[in-house]
Amino acid sequence: MTGEAKIRVRYAETDKMGVVYHSNFIVWFEVGRVELLRQLGFRYRDLEREHDCHIAVADVRCRFKSPAYYDDELIVRTRLKNIRGSLLHFAYEIVRAEDGTLLAEGETTHIVVNAKFEKTQLPERFQSAFAAAVKQ
Amino acid sequence: MTGEAKIRVRYAETDKMGVVYHSNFIVWFEVGRVELLRQLGFRYRDLEREHDCHIAVADVRCRFKSPAYYDDELIVRTRLKNIRGSLLHFAYEIVRAEDGTLLAEGETTHIVVNAKFEKTQLPERFQSAFAAAVKQ
Amino acid sequence: MTGEAKIRVRYAETDKMGVVYHSNFIVWFEVGRVELLRQLGFRYRDLEREHDCHIAVADVRCRFKSPAYYDDELIVRTRLKNIRGSLLHFAYEIVRAEDGTLLAEGETTHIVVNAKFEKTQLPERFQSAFAAAVKQ
Amino acid sequence: MTGEAKIRVRYAETDKMGVVYHSNFIVWFEVGRVELLRQLGFRYRDLEREHDCHIAVADVRCRFKSPAYYDDELIVRTRLKNIRGSLLHFAYEIVRAEDGTLLAEGETTHIVVNAKFEKTQLPERFQSAFAAAVKQ
Repeated sequence: MTGEAKIRVRYAETDKMGVVYHSNFIVWFEVGRVELLRQLGFRYRDLEREHDCHIAVADVRCRFKSPAYYDDELIVRTRLKNIRGSLLHFAYEIVRAEDGTLLAEGETTHIVVNAKFEKTQLPERFQSAFAAAVKQ
Repeated sequence: MTGEAKIRVRYAETDKMGVVYHSNFIVWFEVGRVELLRQLGFRYRDLEREHDCHIAVADVRCRFKSPAYYDDELIVRTRLKNIRGSLLHFAYEIVRAEDGTLLAEGETTHIVVNAKFEKTQLPERFQSAFAAAVKQ
Repeated sequence: MTGEAKIRVRYAETDKMGVVYHSNFIVWFEVGRVELLRQLGFRYRDLEREHDCHIAVADVRCRFKSPAYYDDELIVRTRLKNIRGSLLHFAYEIVRAEDGTLLAEGETTHIVVNAKFEKTQLPERFQSAFAAAVKQ
Repeated sequence: MTGEAKIRVRYAETDKMGVVYHSNFIVWFEVGRVELLRQLGFRYRDLEREHDCHIAVADVRCRFKSPAYYDDELIVRTRLKNIRGSLLHFAYEIVRAEDGTLLAEGETTHIVVNAKFEKTQLPERFQSAFAAAVKQ
């Protein structure tokens, strides 16, 4: 199962090379994760508010394949690759909507923590939905 | 009394026009405020932590006079213009260190609130130090 | 005539107060401007590319009325208030989509410049479309 | 040889978890690279301006070890690990200045390109200085 989020590149996200500054792709990965969760029927905001579960980033990697330009419409494709206890592993592809060019791909590893950054468990309902998403 | 903060322009802060994207000046105003407080002997972090006082922004204005460029060293000059009850009024000038060119000037109005965004009072110690800073 | 842009608040845009950091509203004003132009039939990207016209920000003001929260869906309403020669004046309202709460309102003044930041004129086609938008 | 850059965490860089939002570490890596170059006697700005050489990011990785907090003073330690033709490989450690806690470590891979994103060579003077820095 792959989530899809649409992004329109903002002027603020470009840099003096005339392309998107690279750290913005990391922000967009997060947008992708949240939209994947929404497509699974969950709102990340509620996970934080109601269950004190926060999906903290432990590791991020991104390979930049081609520049993104101002006002480009992008698609962030996000998959939940693996879940094991409190560890989650996501993979991403960011493509330009207009021509399908692959702009970046990456992975993130996360650990579920409470508001004090102590390792915790996702509620059962989330665990099983996430495990099912991995298999799709 | 004028606080001075030094800023080195980051690549991430530029845009495709080859200059600093304008919203970053608003971020630098905040850097200027915090350094002014530090020069008054206070750490804004402690004001939040120990007194549950947060200087929330109610109004911001910025006039852009000349572009800032990548790797420029800038000076943010911040003055506390007025304090009246829970209201604080700051004024700013941002200049390029190398040649003194005025890049931007602005003002912000703030209201002191607690973590629930309810209006509150600064501790007496801060009130009087701030009032003294206005007169200098 | 009022342009409407939709924004979903990103985690990156929040701060330790648990709300959106204020400078992001200035970024969203820019998103609003670009969407208004798109609704007028123009792509700001092309104005830069094809006509070497850049709508540089000369003055920005924002009044913050109520906090925006993570994952809120926001609407940026943008109007072109005035155009006079190379000067453009926009006004903005940002509301929460769910309940219509007014979160911020502001204005920006712009000057049309070329890539060297010299004052220039909008192409006639844009001038007249913009002037018509002011009157609507 | 290790470059050292000092960073003061800005309010804008925190998120609703009360800590620094993770993509800011990637921005700080860039600050670290530029300071390393400065310590090697080069200004990255001049490399772009005078030689049309841009050190574009091809790959970034960051492992997050411990949260960074608002107003923390951080040290970004940057090493040039390898240079081979147009490829550069940097490594980073970000520690809290006050207690030396390791907050993040990472690596980036870069390719030297011209303004059109075509692969190019660093000027000889830079090549040899960089090669020497790798060996130190």
